[in-house]
Amino acid sequence: MSDEFYMDLALNEAWKYQILTYPNPAVGCVICDKFGKILSIKAHKKAGYLHAEPMAILFALFNLNDEILNKFLNEYNVCFTQSFKTLTELNEADLDAKFCYEFILSNHGNLLNDASAYVTLEPCSHHGKTPACAILIKQLGFKRVIISVCDENKIASGGAKILKEAGIDVKIGVLKEHTKKLMLPFKTWLNGNFIFYKLAMSANGVITGGIISNELSRTHMHKLRGVIDLLVIGGNTVRVDRPVLDARLANAKAPDVAIYSTKRDFDTDIALFSVKNRNVEILDNLEVINKPLVMIEGGEQMLKKIALGEILNVKWVLIYQSSEFKNADNIKLDVRLKPLYEGRLGDDRYGWYEVC
Amino acid sequence: MSDEFYMDLALNEAWKYQILTYPNPAVGCVICDKFGKILSIKAHKKAGYLHAEPMAILFALFNLNDEILNKFLNEYNVCFTQSFKTLTELNEADLDAKFCYEFILSNHGNLLNDASAYVTLEPCSHHGKTPACAILIKQLGFKRVIISVCDENKIASGGAKILKEAGIDVKIGVLKEHTKKLMLPFKTWLNGNFIFYKLAMSANGVITGGIISNELSRTHMHKLRGVIDLLVIGGNTVRVDRPVLDARLANAKAPDVAIYSTKRDFDTDIALFSVKNRNVEILDNLEVINKPLVMIEGGEQMLKKIALGEILNVKWVLIYQSSEFKNADNIKLDVRLKPLYEGRLGDDRYGWYEVC
Repeated sequence: MSDEFYMDLALNEAWKYQILTYPNPAVGCVICDKFGKILSIKAHKKAGYLHAEPMAILFALFNLNDEILNKFLNEYNVCFTQSFKTLTELNEADLDAKFCYEFILSNHGNLLNDASAYVTLEPCSHHGKTPACAILIKQLGFKRVIISVCDENKIASGGAKILKEAGIDVKIGVLKEHTKKLMLPFKTWLNGNFIFYKLAMSANGVITGGIISNELSRTHMHKLRGVIDLLVIGGNTVRVDRPVLDARLANAKAPDVAIYSTKRDFDTDIALFSVKNRNVEILDNLEVINKPLVMIEGGEQMLKKIALGEILNVKWVLIYQSSEFKNADNIKLDVRLKPLYEGRLGDDRYGWYEVC
Repeated sequence: MSDEFYMDLALNEAWKYQILTYPNPAVGCVICDKFGKILSIKAHKKAGYLHAEPMAILFALFNLNDEILNKFLNEYNVCFTQSFKTLTELNEADLDAKFCYEFILSNHGNLLNDASAYVTLEPCSHHGKTPACAILIKQLGFKRVIISVCDENKIASGGAKILKEAGIDVKIGVLKEHTKKLMLPFKTWLNGNFIFYKLAMSANGVITGGIISNELSRTHMHKLRGVIDLLVIGGNTVRVDRPVLDARLANAKAPDVAIYSTKRDFDTDIALFSVKNRNVEILDNLEVINKPLVMIEGGEQMLKKIALGEILNVKWVLIYQSSEFKNADNIKLDVRLKPLYEGRLGDDRYGWYEVC
């Protein structure tokens, strides 16, 4: 198959963690052995978690040799008093980066000699708490590294140069237009605000009448609430729905809230006002918002204003859509969206869309 | 990666041609070389076209050796006075099965020795116009064949036995529940009627007000019209929309039409009545329909009756959904659908759903 095929697998994996990696970019990585067999498809999942490349390298080694997996489990569980037993548990875990790097370097046994790595973003060259990803790839004897886009961040860039100087065949630019879309939130919040609008609706466009989305969708949304800097909500929604707006399904910190309203007379018994460690502000002008990552949870009126460009510079819409038709009125407005990514959360679909 | 990973690739490819293969089942096939590298991902596209296995084998050989591709193009173009130049053209073409089989047997050069094939359905054992797929796989020296479900068709079954007797490692049952869903239309029309309901709507559930779907979606729908035995449409839709209901975008034969109506007073100037080689009947009772493959193109009332089980035994709904919101009323009913497959046609999404 073509380089584009493998890069597409890496991109799809990266999209699953879009925004959740804040303030880091979403990055995906596919590793193939020297014969072209896929060994792993992984992504960076959350800031502080392993980068996509070491995650993919670790799982490639587990795939190649069960003994490496068993050794990892034994040593990791002893060292960090954990009780991980399966690949699935490791896959979800916040693994210690330093331990993983050292484990990889001590146990790879040249199994990844002449392997290939497909990465959506240039591997980092920055030696922070852990060695740079580019150095790790070099040390394992990879033969080819295929990069979609280069890192413009001055501290982290230079990975491709390190790889080339080590004699690795480096190809840059595969599916780069797609990866530029993937990277747009990161590029935007680095130098300004990335603001997205979240909508949950039925298969036939109904957004009212109680809970629309399934638990997987709501958990995903709570994870987002756990990483954003600010949640913006319309005053009417607060008065009618009396929401909590916390992130309990993800065991995460509830976000700060800005209520968009010209009136300030809210019933302070509404649950959102009583959430601990949360700031709530009431704004009649959203242009003052200067947080890097902002999610809007509004209703029809708010989406109309956004579609018309009347409030804020909202580039993306996140839609959770159930597979249920409801006998009720839909949200009504004229707006064309361009799909960037769609995935499934059980029977619900969710997707990231550009406002055209 | 696991057997499930490769079978899932085969399944996804097969779903793209769901119903379009009528009266054959939708079948997908992935071929990996002896090292586990993916060589091709193909499906059976249309009755009369190559089976999934020889299609995947042919493209695996093209992938392995450019000279085989060039030789194929030269010989095929001379033999059939064609002017195919690219893999893309070959991929879409109705290739002569006998020629392809003989070409494969004469030119494989043992390149597929010890390869693996993942097939959603047991390879056929029936020697018809061309050799059976099981024999072909045996002759090429495959080492492993992974089958999702076995063929219950007495004429075609027995492929797994042929493979096992040749010493090939045969594994059966990978993702079989998913493949059973894929095969449901085929199983149904073999012994009765498979009836599905087609709906085109905007992102927010609007089904009225002119053309909703893009040209790719409409072409897909015309391909379906080209293979079905009967198109059922509601009398009101005929009176209001005055449709042609042909299959011009797919250069296919327009389907026969049954209009569901208690009144018989249709304006015969309505375009659908003037399409050549078409039967039109007006039915006040749909239970008399006994064609194997039937598509319903109805409006809200018809879908409500189906959801309530009042008319026909409709198990599946095909939905084309644009990524555009419209400022208009939605279709309104209570029904829960279970997604079976979703794919993209440009900015539109389409999907097959089970009525729960």
